[in-house]
Amino acid sequence: MRNVICGRCVRCGREYPAVPNLTNCECGGILDIIYDYDEIRSHFSKETLRTRENRSMWRYRELLPVEPETPEPPLRVGWSPLYRADRLARRLGIARLWIKDDGLNPTASLKDRASSMAVAKAMEAGAKVIACSSTGNAASSLAGNAAAAGLRTYIFVPSRAPKGKVAQLMTFGATVVSVQGSYEETFDLSKQAIDRWGWYNRNAAINPYLSEGKKTVGLEIMEQLNWQVPDYIAISVGDGCTIAGLWKGLKDLYAIGFIDRLPHLISAQAEGCHPINRAIETGTPWEPMEENTLADSIAVGVPRNADKALMAIRESDGLVVNVSDEEIMAAQKLLGTDCGVFGEPAGVTGTAGLKKLCEQGRIPADAAVVSVVTGNGLKDVANAIRFCGEPISIPSDMDRLLAAFAERGVEPG
Amino acid sequence: MRNVICGRCVRCGREYPAVPNLTNCECGGILDIIYDYDEIRSHFSKETLRTRENRSMWRYRELLPVEPETPEPPLRVGWSPLYRADRLARRLGIARLWIKDDGLNPTASLKDRASSMAVAKAMEAGAKVIACSSTGNAASSLAGNAAAAGLRTYIFVPSRAPKGKVAQLMTFGATVVSVQGSYEETFDLSKQAIDRWGWYNRNAAINPYLSEGKKTVGLEIMEQLNWQVPDYIAISVGDGCTIAGLWKGLKDLYAIGFIDRLPHLISAQAEGCHPINRAIETGTPWEPMEENTLADSIAVGVPRNADKALMAIRESDGLVVNVSDEEIMAAQKLLGTDCGVFGEPAGVTGTAGLKKLCEQGRIPADAAVVSVVTGNGLKDVANAIRFCGEPISIPSDMDRLLAAFAERGVEPG
Repeated sequence: MRNVICGRCVRCGREYPAVPNLTNCECGGILDIIYDYDEIRSHFSKETLRTRENRSMWRYRELLPVEPETPEPPLRVGWSPLYRADRLARRLGIARLWIKDDGLNPTASLKDRASSMAVAKAMEAGAKVIACSSTGNAASSLAGNAAAAGLRTYIFVPSRAPKGKVAQLMTFGATVVSVQGSYEETFDLSKQAIDRWGWYNRNAAINPYLSEGKKTVGLEIMEQLNWQVPDYIAISVGDGCTIAGLWKGLKDLYAIGFIDRLPHLISAQAEGCHPINRAIETGTPWEPMEENTLADSIAVGVPRNADKALMAIRESDGLVVNVSDEEIMAAQKLLGTDCGVFGEPAGVTGTAGLKKLCEQGRIPADAAVVSVVTGNGLKDVANAIRFCGEPISIPSDMDRLLAAFAERGVEPG
Repeated sequence: MRNVICGRCVRCGREYPAVPNLTNCECGGILDIIYDYDEIRSHFSKETLRTRENRSMWRYRELLPVEPETPEPPLRVGWSPLYRADRLARRLGIARLWIKDDGLNPTASLKDRASSMAVAKAMEAGAKVIACSSTGNAASSLAGNAAAAGLRTYIFVPSRAPKGKVAQLMTFGATVVSVQGSYEETFDLSKQAIDRWGWYNRNAAINPYLSEGKKTVGLEIMEQLNWQVPDYIAISVGDGCTIAGLWKGLKDLYAIGFIDRLPHLISAQAEGCHPINRAIETGTPWEPMEENTLADSIAVGVPRNADKALMAIRESDGLVVNVSDEEIMAAQKLLGTDCGVFGEPAGVTGTAGLKKLCEQGRIPADAAVVSVVTGNGLKDVANAIRFCGEPISIPSDMDRLLAAFAERGVEPG
């Protein structure tokens, strides 16, 4: 890869050649992919992009760690819509707000960006099989993106995994192993199996290319804003890989001169599980935390990408904010009602955090903000049912309808 | 509208000015929107499209029945991916196959195309409120698209409506009226309320603009195929509005010279509910049928757009095929495993029908076929759970994993 120099450990700085099956540093640190920005600048410009037909994350190929001849995986990942949200901006008391709806990816979450990259790197490695252990969006996005590319998948889930998610995995043709035990035991068995059979490993804790896929959300936001940098970008944080990827994308654009400043990140976590935000708040190393939140996709008590995430938040001079489950579900309703965007609980946590910061007066009234919705509400209808309230329930009778409207203060017409 | 001449009754031929709140003909027939193709040809060419940035259904504005100054509704509807599906084509024994995944629309179904049009026409009519009665994709797509545009919605559902769908509607801020009674009683109350308060009516049985929105799926397929016409396009059929819209789009392109021939339509219905296909098979007028299928979005025993649908199938010299629920669920698995596309049961019925026709030898081996997936599998996870089979369930133990693989004939590596 002409555009990539190496993988470099974020802890000890040791460098490794950027082979397709690159994993962690010997010291245990996760690697960061280092680019040759001078090389990239020499043949990649905003003008190049303007005339490019490709409307997927792969339109930014010059900034992605793949060989020139590597085929683009089949599913159309990325280029999700960025909606101007004026009503919601007024409600929050800020000047401008955009909602990036990444729930419209092929398997309905931002994780597709990482899985598309994993498929591309697996193809480079000549692998026919990819594996991961996960109960959530990473698993379904890997299974879907790999199926489309003709690669087989082995997915290890703890037995508590919801049946609906298992059904989705099996529909994508994954071999699903339900492990009777904890997530740690599940991970252990998957690791033994990956080592034994040499499967390609799609695990954001180990594979440094995944956050390079995720960074495309940042590249897209900036191009969709015509390179006008917002003041803040709010996003939910669990494992840490996503916010780290977002930041990497923004820094890439800054390094090649596409943008002239960087926004502040807003890291939103659940009150019941916020080890990364706690580390920022206390200025101490992160420590494990319990996982007490209904926002399952960010209920990560032991974040695997904490190093990269903490660096991103600090470098951006960012804000951290923790929200309750009630605040999360209120944000889901707000995004639905004001913007027509239905996000899963973890998906709307960034918006919940932004709302809380606005209420606390921590966001200037003239701010321009982007809030990323990372997953589709259809992934978790059960919680929406619990929080949305009851519909009007009446027989087919106009008088009863009039009475029900009056009772609820509904003014039709 | 310079490009539109009138609305014309498909039964009696009577013509009406194309006002925004156009409804059925006095004779009860549904109207078809008639365009001035000479006018359109004079300023709309393939070259115009080639340089157009807009990647939504509104890129075809010259062929849509809206005023030039009507704003585009906010949600990004349309321009769903068209995937080349070589593995599935080989499996079915046909030369070329593409899958159009319309489950990737904002509220996860093709119905968004109709709802986006309804929102545009409601804005033209100066309406602040839109209403419909439906339990399914039409309701959620109306609620979402209207919310994004700042319009209020009243949705009437029968009390049997699944809680998840009601929750989605309420999240979008709709006023939901759950009617204790049958669908007919629900429809009756909605009609009384619409008449009383003058709400804009989003009902494909009445509003002739909705199929004009849906036709954009046909426009997109042809542009994405670079105007190379396939031999067949397969799609599921319930009410009839969707296949009629698809056909209208294709005929539009033929009329303005963008394509030089027309494909055959494949109308796929459920064995347990196929009034439209039965009318074609028997050469008699359609008659109501019971609704015995798990593919709820096409379980329509009394199709409201049967006239337009029957004309479309006949004009295209099309094929009809009825599939069992088992064949539908097998197609869901096939699309997931071979293509990485997860469709809801009704959404994959077109593919199930295509598969059956291939097995019956009714599709030539050299055929090029497009199959449209009309809705996302996340809309109905319950049926996927019933049909997907059980995962391997073991403790975290490598010997047990080896035994389970051997037992199931899984050959890892």
